[in-house]
Amino acid sequence: MNLAQGVLDGDRLALARTLSQVENGTAEGKSALSALFPHTGKAHLVGITGASGTGKSSLVNQLARYYRQPTQTGKPRTVGIVAVDPTSPFTGGAILGDRIRMRDLAGDPGVFIRSMATRGSLGGLASATSAIVQVLDAAGYDLVLIETVGAGQSEIDIVRLAHTTIVVEAPGLGDDIQAIKAGILEIADVLVVNKADLPGVENTERALRGSLSLSHPPAQRVLHHGRMVNVPGQPPPDKDELVWIPPIQRTVALDGTGIPELADAIANHKIYLEATGAWQRRERWRLQTELDLLLQNTLVTDFRAHLPAGAYEQAVDELVSRRITPFQAVESLVSNADIKYKEAT
Amino acid sequence: MNLAQGVLDGDRLALARTLSQVENGTAEGKSALSALFPHTGKAHLVGITGASGTGKSSLVNQLARYYRQPTQTGKPRTVGIVAVDPTSPFTGGAILGDRIRMRDLAGDPGVFIRSMATRGSLGGLASATSAIVQVLDAAGYDLVLIETVGAGQSEIDIVRLAHTTIVVEAPGLGDDIQAIKAGILEIADVLVVNKADLPGVENTERALRGSLSLSHPPAQRVLHHGRMVNVPGQPPPDKDELVWIPPIQRTVALDGTGIPELADAIANHKIYLEATGAWQRRERWRLQTELDLLLQNTLVTDFRAHLPAGAYEQAVDELVSRRITPFQAVESLVSNADIKYKEAT
Repeated sequence: MNLAQGVLDGDRLALARTLSQVENGTAEGKSALSALFPHTGKAHLVGITGASGTGKSSLVNQLARYYRQPTQTGKPRTVGIVAVDPTSPFTGGAILGDRIRMRDLAGDPGVFIRSMATRGSLGGLASATSAIVQVLDAAGYDLVLIETVGAGQSEIDIVRLAHTTIVVEAPGLGDDIQAIKAGILEIADVLVVNKADLPGVENTERALRGSLSLSHPPAQRVLHHGRMVNVPGQPPPDKDELVWIPPIQRTVALDGTGIPELADAIANHKIYLEATGAWQRRERWRLQTELDLLLQNTLVTDFRAHLPAGAYEQAVDELVSRRITPFQAVESLVSNADIKYKEAT
Repeated sequence: MNLAQGVLDGDRLALARTLSQVENGTAEGKSALSALFPHTGKAHLVGITGASGTGKSSLVNQLARYYRQPTQTGKPRTVGIVAVDPTSPFTGGAILGDRIRMRDLAGDPGVFIRSMATRGSLGGLASATSAIVQVLDAAGYDLVLIETVGAGQSEIDIVRLAHTTIVVEAPGLGDDIQAIKAGILEIADVLVVNKADLPGVENTERALRGSLSLSHPPAQRVLHHGRMVNVPGQPPPDKDELVWIPPIQRTVALDGTGIPELADAIANHKIYLEATGAWQRRERWRLQTELDLLLQNTLVTDFRAHLPAGAYEQAVDELVSRRITPFQAVESLVSNADIKYKEAT
């Protein structure tokens, strides 16, 4: 079976098999990925992140169900979902949530769900997630929702894959100082206060609004929910001056409240990105990040393969006995491998 | 001023300056780090991690205050604190918490506090944190407490620096399925249920105990709180058979409840590590991780410096237009640099 052709033809079995091969980094997976790469770049990649307990998974479920309904303007959209759980490095913590989710959306041919737990070492997860997203993009899904737990560096690496990043908060998740981080707000394109039926929703929203006003300077022209807004007494806005102010959307994922408005905000963000050229810039930056990760893995693997037998273990021994410093150990290993570069022209 | 000598002599100003130089990766910082490295390996490195809202920072504060009291068996211990906040990649989110903390422990010469936000790219934070911890170790602090928010891959990379890892939970932080991850439990040496005066503490502790019994197989011999425990009807334990079952400690950081018992559990874990040889194994593994990170950064930096002008940008251009795949881009760049390794002997 030609895996890549199967994926392009919409064969779900071929898709599932390709994703497994890609995630495990097999030769078959790499070859499929290369064949599929020219077909990528069409899906709207949407990252969804937020702390445990904010109800992200239910929100992603509801969004997917919403996209599967016919719209006034056209057909239902198809949705790929990638659930990444970096808190489960050893056991498959993502699996339980996945089963619950599967039950809900099972049998819909327009939805494909894939769960990933952390694999391998540093950079491995972001790189594997990117590959999975590429396959779903090439498979023709209109939207790919990338869901990730928490707010650490690895989650930020993952949401960087997305065109649109949604940060989910919920009322009553502990100290506001800790829960609502300026750093996280700066990566947010759309903010969601989920569980908006709980007490404290006003406080959470006020805290978000306050933090937003710190991280986003007052703008003269605002593309509000995808529409350009004139500021009274000012000339009409020029497209180069457009600024996106992240909207704050209240939702109740359990009953679907606010989901259509959230989907609108996501669609409007895409309009904004395309109108300002930011779509192309993010795309370039995304591929560059991808390239850097792959380059790093390749260089380290090649280097290791060319070390004399025992050299690495000896360096660790000398490190443990404090005879050499980590910098000296690296110098010694690099000189052992005796890398010669071409002269830069 | 010789920075490294100042650090070894206990000069706080030299220490602060060294930490800044090290964190910023200057030549002066690297040279100080090399001079200090032979003096490392003495401190007990304790990692403290947990979700937002669990009250980690207050807990770390209380622990530090406890260590500063004279004990029955000797002098107060000196404490270095490294607070790492990977959720603040752009702005200094760690700073506010730091100021609150500083007020509490200010003026005590036996405590040194350093906050770090995420710097640089992939692997940068773990590597920078490791360097900061090495400096505090060389400076002679008896314990170095490494506090980090959340539970993503980057936090796991950080707690891997530690001899003893404490995972902090609190009642009522959302779904138990999400909050108490098997993956996180597997890295925990000591579990803390903080805010134990809140309702729901029994549920949290029960959920932890249930997850623990899954991740830790029943053991014949248990070193419970540092003491070897005989199982009735079994021969007395042999030290090679010792197993550490992570104790669960309730605390109320605000009034200090449970803090002496937590400090005991930390001390007992050290006794266990030393009795079983695990201290040396962790130490070796820690230094090896450190070496891997540094090696990776060195290889990538060297490679970039040897690329012909424009080659990297051209590869990104071809990637964006989907003319080549990421794998092909890496191949092309690597062949451009034409790396020659020595034959492995």
